[in-house]
Amino acid sequence: MTSVEHSPLTRKLSAFVALSDVELAVLERLHQRRRSFVAGRDMVHQGQSSQAAYILSAGWVCSYKLQADGTRQIVDFQVPGDFLGLRSVLLRTSDHSFEPIVDIEAAEVMTSDLLEAFAQTPRLATAILWAASRDEAMVVEHLVGIGRRDADARMAHFLLELASRLALVGMGSREGYDCPLTQYHLADALGLSAVHVNRVLRQLRESGCVTFRDGHVTIHDHDRLVDLAEFDPAYLDQIGPLLK
Amino acid sequence: MTSVEHSPLTRKLSAFVALSDVELAVLERLHQRRRSFVAGRDMVHQGQSSQAAYILSAGWVCSYKLQADGTRQIVDFQVPGDFLGLRSVLLRTSDHSFEPIVDIEAAEVMTSDLLEAFAQTPRLATAILWAASRDEAMVVEHLVGIGRRDADARMAHFLLELASRLALVGMGSREGYDCPLTQYHLADALGLSAVHVNRVLRQLRESGCVTFRDGHVTIHDHDRLVDLAEFDPAYLDQIGPLLK
Repeated sequence: MTSVEHSPLTRKLSAFVALSDVELAVLERLHQRRRSFVAGRDMVHQGQSSQAAYILSAGWVCSYKLQADGTRQIVDFQVPGDFLGLRSVLLRTSDHSFEPIVDIEAAEVMTSDLLEAFAQTPRLATAILWAASRDEAMVVEHLVGIGRRDADARMAHFLLELASRLALVGMGSREGYDCPLTQYHLADALGLSAVHVNRVLRQLRESGCVTFRDGHVTIHDHDRLVDLAEFDPAYLDQIGPLLK
Repeated sequence: MTSVEHSPLTRKLSAFVALSDVELAVLERLHQRRRSFVAGRDMVHQGQSSQAAYILSAGWVCSYKLQADGTRQIVDFQVPGDFLGLRSVLLRTSDHSFEPIVDIEAAEVMTSDLLEAFAQTPRLATAILWAASRDEAMVVEHLVGIGRRDADARMAHFLLELASRLALVGMGSREGYDCPLTQYHLADALGLSAVHVNRVLRQLRESGCVTFRDGHVTIHDHDRLVDLAEFDPAYLDQIGPLLK
């Protein structure tokens, strides 16, 4: 196994399973149907039926639910290497919508492709289920954040989670990362108003923890941010491969 | 296929897949290691590693995360027919805790049992993944509820979700169901104080929508409750089998 030019999904799954050449080839075949989507136009609507899943290879997406009164709850953001709508392959209608935040590249994956890949390489199936389990663990953390963390801790936790996720696919580090999210995205994800988001970010910056400005997050004091967020990365389960 | 004396999980999965006799037999074998757990003592702790999953056959359980300050966020409740810790079979540590609310009966399922069952009957694997997807869709709804619904709508949504889930395993109907939850459970699940829970329940009762008293939920006006909650049961995906 070489480390050159693998897709972000391959990099991510390699944290969990040491993939063989055959498994790598099956995984690459899942990327065959490459598509582009423009920022701001839903790829999948909530209530839409029998859609494909996607593997995101470049750009950021948000998954959200709209309420009847027009308010929006962002459930999660997807970064390169993440699946979009993996769950909806099994449920008959999508339970939420996906919107590209910037122009993106994604590979379309049919249910049949996925089941065929699973049948060929059970280890790859386990790795993909690991990724799905991790996605769900993140949604649980977001629930805990909105239910039980104050605004500062919620924001700090959110920024640290993104740092870990992006580091896994080679797009960031403990020092920081590029981030195309607006304060409206943060507000809709964290259950805060945009004004409140602005105030929280200013506090975090003035206290010397973290600066989010001009599309870049700079983490000045990782340890203090971890303390503030009570961030325990165990739920991301990304420390070293489990299956050799 | 006969309808007599199936386990709650079998009843639930039958909503998704018309199971053959072979599949039913494999499913019943997963129930071999029957165990009992007493109310109030954690079955699985957050941070615990390499534990089994369980299939709940009698009683109620809650899954939760504790914050360092001692506050608790209940992520979901499990009712008969639900898996406990299915996700933790793949993640190396459990990302939350499971506590029986009453004395319960559950079957312990090892990872190897599950993978063997999956290999024998791919349709059963699909059905179990459907159940896992549905569990995740519920967590997403709880996130939206806490993030975006007011206290009345949140409670109404919660009580309607339970009615649908219990009806699927023959333990309730649109008219109501037995429910062992306390106001403290509701508070920790809905991100409200116990006092607030009490007030919301009184309002819902006085308005003639629903009464929760003495361990029983009585739904007086299902349609009005659905309107109040803006409840759309599509995310539960339980209307008729998908795989014949």
